[in-house]
Amino acid sequence: MAEEKGITPQSEDFSRWYIDTISRADLMDYSPVRGCIVFKPDGYELWERIQDGLDSRFKATGHRNAYFPMLIPESFFQKEKEHVEGFNPELPWVTEAGGEKLEERLAIRPTSETIIGHMYSQWVQSYRDLPVLLNQWANVFRWEKRTMPFLRTSEFLWQEGHTAHADEQEAREETERMLEVYRDFVETEMAVPLWKGQKTPKERFAGAVDTYSIEAMMKDGKALQAGTSHYMGQNFAKAFEIMFLDKDNQRKYVYTTSWGASTRLIGALVMVHGDDKGLALPPRMAPVQVVMIPVGPPKLREKVLEKFNPTFDALKAAGVRVKADFRDETPGWKFNEWEMRGVPLRLELGPRDVDSNQCVLARRDTGEKVTVSLDGIVETITNLLNEIQANMFAKAKAFREANSHYEIDTLDALKAHIEKCDAANETYGWVLAGWCGDDACEAQVKEETKFTSRNIPFEPPMTKHKCLTCGGEAKHTVWFGRAY
Amino acid sequence: MAEEKGITPQSEDFSRWYIDTISRADLMDYSPVRGCIVFKPDGYELWERIQDGLDSRFKATGHRNAYFPMLIPESFFQKEKEHVEGFNPELPWVTEAGGEKLEERLAIRPTSETIIGHMYSQWVQSYRDLPVLLNQWANVFRWEKRTMPFLRTSEFLWQEGHTAHADEQEAREETERMLEVYRDFVETEMAVPLWKGQKTPKERFAGAVDTYSIEAMMKDGKALQAGTSHYMGQNFAKAFEIMFLDKDNQRKYVYTTSWGASTRLIGALVMVHGDDKGLALPPRMAPVQVVMIPVGPPKLREKVLEKFNPTFDALKAAGVRVKADFRDETPGWKFNEWEMRGVPLRLELGPRDVDSNQCVLARRDTGEKVTVSLDGIVETITNLLNEIQANMFAKAKAFREANSHYEIDTLDALKAHIEKCDAANETYGWVLAGWCGDDACEAQVKEETKFTSRNIPFEPPMTKHKCLTCGGEAKHTVWFGRAY
Repeated sequence: MAEEKGITPQSEDFSRWYIDTISRADLMDYSPVRGCIVFKPDGYELWERIQDGLDSRFKATGHRNAYFPMLIPESFFQKEKEHVEGFNPELPWVTEAGGEKLEERLAIRPTSETIIGHMYSQWVQSYRDLPVLLNQWANVFRWEKRTMPFLRTSEFLWQEGHTAHADEQEAREETERMLEVYRDFVETEMAVPLWKGQKTPKERFAGAVDTYSIEAMMKDGKALQAGTSHYMGQNFAKAFEIMFLDKDNQRKYVYTTSWGASTRLIGALVMVHGDDKGLALPPRMAPVQVVMIPVGPPKLREKVLEKFNPTFDALKAAGVRVKADFRDETPGWKFNEWEMRGVPLRLELGPRDVDSNQCVLARRDTGEKVTVSLDGIVETITNLLNEIQANMFAKAKAFREANSHYEIDTLDALKAHIEKCDAANETYGWVLAGWCGDDACEAQVKEETKFTSRNIPFEPPMTKHKCLTCGGEAKHTVWFGRAY
Repeated sequence: MAEEKGITPQSEDFSRWYIDTISRADLMDYSPVRGCIVFKPDGYELWERIQDGLDSRFKATGHRNAYFPMLIPESFFQKEKEHVEGFNPELPWVTEAGGEKLEERLAIRPTSETIIGHMYSQWVQSYRDLPVLLNQWANVFRWEKRTMPFLRTSEFLWQEGHTAHADEQEAREETERMLEVYRDFVETEMAVPLWKGQKTPKERFAGAVDTYSIEAMMKDGKALQAGTSHYMGQNFAKAFEIMFLDKDNQRKYVYTTSWGASTRLIGALVMVHGDDKGLALPPRMAPVQVVMIPVGPPKLREKVLEKFNPTFDALKAAGVRVKADFRDETPGWKFNEWEMRGVPLRLELGPRDVDSNQCVLARRDTGEKVTVSLDGIVETITNLLNEIQANMFAKAKAFREANSHYEIDTLDALKAHIEKCDAANETYGWVLAGWCGDDACEAQVKEETKFTSRNIPFEPPMTKHKCLTCGGEAKHTVWFGRAY
C-alpha cells in the first residue's frame, strides 16, 4: 500500500509532479542499471493495453508478427551511412560472450532496419514475394545521457513495423496508412489529440527519405512525439541489396518503410490527462474502469452486499472492468487512493442506497457526483464511460487549443512570448509559424529559443506565409515547441 | 511460395527431417548472428498462441506481468554462488556503451532472478506485501556452443515467473501450481503428453533448492524438458536480502520460486506430432484449423462458390480459424502444401458436391477422407476438430508408451538395449529405472550411455527397487533418456 505522500502540484514543478504521480500510482521503479526502469504491473498493464490496441490494428491492415535477433554485427550498421551516424553514439556493445572475446562487436539493436534488411534480401526474389508486411514487438536500447521514466530510457519496449514494396507509391501509402493507424489508436483509445504531419529534414529518422509523426501536447505545453512512420525509399534496399525480379523481368530494388511506437506512450497518457490528484485514465485504457466501494457502518455491510454483489456481477458480465475494494480502510482514504490511480468512475453504495435502490457515481474527469438508480445500472455506467472518454478527449483538445499560438510570426516575437510566459509562470505552448525550408533558419530557432520544429501538419489550422526566422517566403507551415 | 523440396524421412535422419520441416513450413530462418534464429510469421504465430494460452492461465492464478532491465551488473551475479557458476560460462557481456567503456560489465540476462531479487528487496517490507506474484515475457541469452532452431539458440523468447512468499509451504505450493499450469497448457492445448516430476540434484537450476519439470518424448525417442518450476527456498532471499516484518514482529527472509517456459515449446510441438509429410498441428494450436480448397474445372468455379462461400462464412462466424485457398495451383499441389504446413483439416468442395449438398473432409492426423453433408457442417467440423485434438494426444501417448521401457534394471541391460536399437535402427526411448540417490551413480549412467535422468515422476507407472548403476536400494524411480 502506497504511503500517504503528497504529489507536487503541476504548476509548481511539472517534472516533479510527473515523477511523483508515476511513482505513487506504482507504474514504475528505478533500477540499479543506468537509465533503465522497471515496468511495475500497473505500468506494464497500460503497455499491454497499448499492445492489444496496436496489434489488432496491425493485423487488420494485413501485417504479421515476427522476431529478429537483438544483436547486430557492427558491419551491418556500416552499410547505411546516415543510419550508422545517427545511432552509433547511443549503442551498447557486446564484446565478449561465452567466455571469449568476439571477433566482431555486436550492437544491441536501437532499431532493426539493418538486420531485417539483410533478411529481406534473402527472402525477396520475385514480385510475388511482395509486399512483405511484418511487425516486431521487442526491447531496444539507446544509451541516453539524460533519461526520464517512460519518455526516454536506455532500454525501452516498442514495436517496429518493417515493410518492403514493389513501387514507391505503395510504400508511401503504407507509410501514411500506419501513421493513420497510430493516430486512430492514440486518439480513439488514449483520448490524446494529435497533429499528423511530416518531420523537417533535420528531424528525420537516420536513413529515411521522409519521416512522419504524430505529435501530442503535454500539460506543461511541451510536445511529445508519440509515433513515427518512415518512408525509406530505396536507401536500405540498396544498402542491403533487397532486390526482386519484376513482372517486366527487370531486377529492381524494393521500397521500404518502417514505423514505431513505444512505451513512451505511457508517459504521454500520464502527462495529457493527469492532474494534481494524480493519474487520470480514459476508460478505454484504464485497467480498472469502475471501482466499487461499500460505504456505511460495518455492521450494515451485509445489507449493503445484497445490492453490491449483484451490481458487481452484472457489470463484470457486461465486460466492464470493475473492481470491488473491501479493504479495511476508510471510504475517504479509498476515494483518494483510486482517484490518484486514475480510475475513471467510482461507485459508492451504502445502506441507505439499498433502501432507495440507488448508488452514487463519482467521475474522475470532472469530479461530479450523481445519484442514480440501480435499475439499468449497467447501461447507465456504460454510457457514462463513453461520455467520460469523449470528455477527456475534448478537454485535452481544448487545452491544446488554448496553448496553441497563431500570431507569433517572428523570432523576436517568440522570444518575447517566452519571456512573458516565464514572468507569468505560464506554459509556452506551441507556435504555428512559417518556415522557408532552410535548415539554418530552423537551427536558429532551436539555438535561440530551444523550440524545435515538431512537424509540418498535413492539415494546418491556417497557412503561414513568412519564415519565422528570415522573414522570407514560407514553404511550410510548421508547429514549433519545446519537446520531450 | 515454397519450392517443392523433399523432406528427409524421419527414419533416415530425424534431425534433418526436423530442419527440413521447420524450414519448408516457413517457421524460421537462420540469421547472420551466431546461434540466433529469425522467428518467421508462421513460427511466431505458434509462439503467440503459446503466449495467449500461458498468459491467461498465469492471470487466472493471480499473477501479473512486469518488465525488468535486460542488462544485469556483474556484481549481481556474484551474490548467489551456485547461480553465477551455472550461468557465467554462457553470458554475453556489454563492456562499452554510448561511446565509453563501462566501469562495470553488464551481462545480458540468461534469466532474471538476480535483478528481480534486488527489486523485491526494495518492494517487500511487511507480510502485507506478500505474496509477490509476477511474470515477465522477455528475450534471454545463453551463448550455446551447439545450437538447434527453437530447442537451443543463443537468444530465445520465454516467460519467467518470479514469486516471493512468507513461508515455505506457500512457496512450495506455488512451485507445484505453476508446474501444473504448464502441464495443463501443454497437454490440453499442444496435445503433448508429459511426465511431471522432480529433477535430480545434478540437474537442478543453478541456485534452486528443488527443480521440477515437465518432460515430453519426441518422435526420435529423445526427451525434451518443456518447462521448469523451481523452489528456491531462501537462497535468493539471503543473497539479495529480501526480508519482511512478519505478523509476529520478526524480520524474516522470504521464500521464492521461479518458473519458465520458452520458444523451445515450438520445437516440441513439431517433434511430437510431425511426420514424413511435414508439420502436423493439433487444432487448438493451429493458426489455420481448416483449409478450404475449391476443386473441379475452373469454368464451374462460380457454381462451387455458391456453397463454398456460405460455408466459409459460417465457419468463420463460429470462430473456426478457416482459410480459403483460391491460388492458381492444382488441388493436388495445394493438398500437399497444407499437409506439409500441418493444417488439421482440409475441406474440398467441387461442382458435384454442390449438387449433392456435401463436401469432402480430409484429416491430417489419420489421412482419412470422409464425405459429409453441408447441413450442420459447422457442428460436424467443430466435433471433428475436437476428435482430432483428442486423437493426436492419444497417438502421442501411445507412441510414448511404446517407447517406454520398464524392464531395464541394470546399466549393462541399458547398454545392451542401446546396442540392439542401434543394430535395428530403432529409437532408444526412455527407461524407467531405480536410483539410489548417489550423484556418482547418476553420473556413471550419463558417462557410459549418454542417458540422463529426466525426472523423478510424481506418479511413476511402477516403483523400482534397485539402483540401475550400483544395484543398491533405490530411493527413487527415475525416467532416463537421451535429451535435447
